[in-house]
Amino acid sequence: MLKLKDDERIDYLVADESMQIIQSPTIFSYSLDALLLANFTYVPVRKGRLLDLCTGNGIIPLLLSKRTYGTIYGLEIQERLANMAARSVNLNDLSDQINIIQGDLKESQRELHQSNFDVVTCNPPYFKTPNDNEKNKNEHLTIARHEVCCSLEDVIKACKLYVKPGGKVALVHRPGRLVDLLTLMRAHKIEPKRLQFVYSKVGRQAIMVLIEGIRDGKADLNILPPLYLYNEDDTYTEETNKIIYGLEN
Amino acid sequence: MLKLKDDERIDYLVADESMQIIQSPTIFSYSLDALLLANFTYVPVRKGRLLDLCTGNGIIPLLLSKRTYGTIYGLEIQERLANMAARSVNLNDLSDQINIIQGDLKESQRELHQSNFDVVTCNPPYFKTPNDNEKNKNEHLTIARHEVCCSLEDVIKACKLYVKPGGKVALVHRPGRLVDLLTLMRAHKIEPKRLQFVYSKVGRQAIMVLIEGIRDGKADLNILPPLYLYNEDDTYTEETNKIIYGLEN
Repeated sequence: MLKLKDDERIDYLVADESMQIIQSPTIFSYSLDALLLANFTYVPVRKGRLLDLCTGNGIIPLLLSKRTYGTIYGLEIQERLANMAARSVNLNDLSDQINIIQGDLKESQRELHQSNFDVVTCNPPYFKTPNDNEKNKNEHLTIARHEVCCSLEDVIKACKLYVKPGGKVALVHRPGRLVDLLTLMRAHKIEPKRLQFVYSKVGRQAIMVLIEGIRDGKADLNILPPLYLYNEDDTYTEETNKIIYGLEN
Repeated sequence: MLKLKDDERIDYLVADESMQIIQSPTIFSYSLDALLLANFTYVPVRKGRLLDLCTGNGIIPLLLSKRTYGTIYGLEIQERLANMAARSVNLNDLSDQINIIQGDLKESQRELHQSNFDVVTCNPPYFKTPNDNEKNKNEHLTIARHEVCCSLEDVIKACKLYVKPGGKVALVHRPGRLVDLLTLMRAHKIEPKRLQFVYSKVGRQAIMVLIEGIRDGKADLNILPPLYLYNEDDTYTEETNKIIYGLEN
């Protein structure tokens, strides 16, 4: 029987009300960024192997399972979060399709084979160093959001390690790191191919970057139409509604 | 007295009807890209030194002269085009403010001092190699649009050579070359700071990239709101109208 720990609760995934996920306000809850990435990434439908790095409470594997019959792996360094993710997989009877592994992406993982994945996704830690006043408040969130356990280069290296030649790597990050992101991807042979900027509203600066690269791909980048999250009156745009309340294939 | 050559004609700059420019349908006419770059770039108002590389018929120096009291240089490799530009400068009585130099940006130019410009702009050749069927049709346009006489790296190196530490470099290019652009800028110590994507219409992919970097600047990129050129009914958007018919400061 499912056991909830501490202040954990079970939430329904709004994109699919038949799916549930274990969250905790003090440990970890998924963000809109993860939904956007799960929606943005290419997914092979009939079969294939997918890997989500920095998977947290497993939100991306859970969402991707609705779009593919392929096998999905999620790697998470934090035992507490990997455990939440694994219990959510069981809660949804998805243990045949989703495998959660607790481990460090900087180390070679026995269960994951190198150059063997059709798609690797990652919603990595965004920030270079945590502020002192954030550091001890919530260790789980600090590790998830700040480059404490892995740098952006570690993430890109791991993507390169696991994706097969011609396979796709999809990431979400902040605009301030776009130059780092593109130069590191190219340096590690993941050629950026599809880029989309996310804006809160018309007339504002971008707040998020979605990018997909192909291992050993030819240089040729397409910049998609912008994605706006909110209308002028602060309601979600039609596009955001589709992503949050009905994940498209 | 001004002499027009071959099929040259004098056009009024739509952004400022008091300003005229010599163009030729068979040799060279400026493009919307140049207007967008002249509008996008930072300009010091009261004084300063500005340099436009690949200046063509001098459209960017002419436009910038309306936004600054600083001294403006334009460098153009093609004698025929540099000559057109110089005659347009005279036509507008701007020879005290604008200096057109005929020369190769790959060679150190005596008249331009190194690390000495507040702003360097460039609307460089976009395409890697000309198609055979384009090659001989119009040699002037081939050189202006294809990397025949200089590569993108040559352009970035020249920007770095002339801009002073803390000075700004503004470029326009195609989305397909964004990764090249950003990696080369960073490699040559011009840190990308401001990026804007130009879309023909809502819902389409980007067709142009405007970028500004700062020599020896700190890594921190802002992505501006998208610029849409046309409305759904193919008329110019308000923003495009402002850029074409009334250049803003």
